[in-house]
Amino acid sequence: MATIQRPEAILRTSQVITNIDAMATKAKRAGVALRPHFKTHQSIPIGRWFRDAGVTGITVSTPEMAAYFADDGWEDITIAFPFYPNQIQQINHLAEKISLRLFINSPDQITYLEKNLDYPVAVYIEADAGYGRSGVSVHHQTEVIDAIVQAATACEKVHLHGFYFHDGDTYRTGSAEKIIAVAERNYNAAGELKRTYPDLSICLGDTPSCSVMDSFPHVDEISPGNFVFFDLTQVVTGSCAIEEVALFIEAPVAQIQPDKDRAILHCGAVHCSKDLITIPGGHTVYGVPVWFDEHQKPHLVWESYLSSLSQEHGVLEHLSAAQKAITDRNTIMICPAHSCLTANLFKEYRDDQSGQPISKRILS
Amino acid sequence: MATIQRPEAILRTSQVITNIDAMATKAKRAGVALRPHFKTHQSIPIGRWFRDAGVTGITVSTPEMAAYFADDGWEDITIAFPFYPNQIQQINHLAEKISLRLFINSPDQITYLEKNLDYPVAVYIEADAGYGRSGVSVHHQTEVIDAIVQAATACEKVHLHGFYFHDGDTYRTGSAEKIIAVAERNYNAAGELKRTYPDLSICLGDTPSCSVMDSFPHVDEISPGNFVFFDLTQVVTGSCAIEEVALFIEAPVAQIQPDKDRAILHCGAVHCSKDLITIPGGHTVYGVPVWFDEHQKPHLVWESYLSSLSQEHGVLEHLSAAQKAITDRNTIMICPAHSCLTANLFKEYRDDQSGQPISKRILS
Repeated sequence: MATIQRPEAILRTSQVITNIDAMATKAKRAGVALRPHFKTHQSIPIGRWFRDAGVTGITVSTPEMAAYFADDGWEDITIAFPFYPNQIQQINHLAEKISLRLFINSPDQITYLEKNLDYPVAVYIEADAGYGRSGVSVHHQTEVIDAIVQAATACEKVHLHGFYFHDGDTYRTGSAEKIIAVAERNYNAAGELKRTYPDLSICLGDTPSCSVMDSFPHVDEISPGNFVFFDLTQVVTGSCAIEEVALFIEAPVAQIQPDKDRAILHCGAVHCSKDLITIPGGHTVYGVPVWFDEHQKPHLVWESYLSSLSQEHGVLEHLSAAQKAITDRNTIMICPAHSCLTANLFKEYRDDQSGQPISKRILS
Repeated sequence: MATIQRPEAILRTSQVITNIDAMATKAKRAGVALRPHFKTHQSIPIGRWFRDAGVTGITVSTPEMAAYFADDGWEDITIAFPFYPNQIQQINHLAEKISLRLFINSPDQITYLEKNLDYPVAVYIEADAGYGRSGVSVHHQTEVIDAIVQAATACEKVHLHGFYFHDGDTYRTGSAEKIIAVAERNYNAAGELKRTYPDLSICLGDTPSCSVMDSFPHVDEISPGNFVFFDLTQVVTGSCAIEEVALFIEAPVAQIQPDKDRAILHCGAVHCSKDLITIPGGHTVYGVPVWFDEHQKPHLVWESYLSSLSQEHGVLEHLSAAQKAITDRNTIMICPAHSCLTANLFKEYRDDQSGQPISKRILS
């Protein structure tokens, strides 16, 4: 790459394609449909690499994101966030052109949609097997599920497609075994739902379980997102190795402070986000530097880390441990805690080999 | 306002202008120049309201941000982040058109600039009186300061303008008295520098001290930024009252969970940022809901708060305490922890009265 005038989001393009192909192959072997979550990359060119791998249905988080990808020819899109009535105009606009799947959590939403939709849509019941964020508890709210199923029976415009699980607790584990142990509650719940509602599909969403498991009992579709890039959190969680991480921040060194053994990087909250992860050794950090060996493989320098961020500043501790990570452009490559939020903060990506920009969607 | 289809950054425009006018008046009375930091709002229209208040010199954090405001006729801009050589091309491009002030931390940077600049620039020595982020310690690195002053003497293109203090520790206080106590170290240091280098200017940057103090001993310029909007952190710090906060997120309610007494808001890390603040009562939160009285004055509902965020989801605890904050559009107005990072995550603002968009710069 020629010059770095500012912090850049560097994409290891060949690794992105490897990650896509691996998940597509796994899904095929397991006999499940891959409906990847595109909120991580938010990029039409990267979406096309998924299309090259045979993907036809995708997942996003907002109507705006759905419109962005629909403009590139995607015709089968899940909006994986609870539908709310303020969105109805955008939903009708989208549903005129493409097949949409929405998230609903109550029979009232079925009634509202049936009354206000101009075109048919499919819906998932957002199912919660224990994570406890949004959705309907499959253990404590079976009457809500029954009522939704009942409400959908009489509908012409609302088609109840199935159940969608996203379990964020798989991100708080630390090994493949622990991920599988947490994920088990979703598979058990999926099995029960399948017995009660054999005609409804089951979709499962998290990167950790989709990364470490090879078969997905009772599941018809998987929709991981983060695996396209992975990140430091996934390395710590046990979902991937650092070699599989495909997005880094190239951060210019702004000041070296030898007396404190640290560097001030141009890598702040507006680049890295303020998401944190606790790394081996016990430090809670925003990112860790990496160096690349002669085969262009990244290696983490665990002894060094971003300990604090302000808007533009990143404070990198234990710089002496990270000497290998300083490039000849006087930059340091950072593996951020959370690639989805990092990606959201950049206008475009840069290909690690050519330095060429790879376009993406910009904010909402 | 008509409709809210998604989370929006709502600007209390009249309060923004009040905040600007108050700081401009204070600076005038104190006999200091106001060079406000525009990284908070990143908006040409808001910049023009500063111009209406008599401001002619401004502060930004990157060359890109300087170029954005230079295009609107700003001709005197400080880039308040340590200069690094990768920026030289952009600096030369800017310095051809406008008066620039850069941050430097070493005599080497003076030498580098003198050799590589095509046009003259002014520089500040970034002075650190105890905060300990970037910059030169005024206590422990006086020999570095001397060497910079010495290196600048022989320069034709580099003009040493003065010292710039930013003390982030004033944000970790809790009352006007505590802010003033922390700020004192900067004023003491400024006094010492003034005695040693009477021809050099002193600029001081943080919103808390500029908000609660009325005179600025030894200081020639002030460059606060956040005061244009203020935020929850500034309320907790003691810099402002909630009535002075001018930026809120209007967050659609996506799901109400009566059994947990909470709501899932469409207000995630991509809207609010993941910056946190510990509020009275001891909870560490991303934001707090507000309601507006008949005079359109905001009031915080401290009993309720955003306890966790994922990319699009915000979990609002103790919803029953926040009933007053639910609008007839089924949204909740949120006072975010940190308005600078929140503003950075939106493509535009909306005027609270007209609903009209107010444009801003988008990412780097």
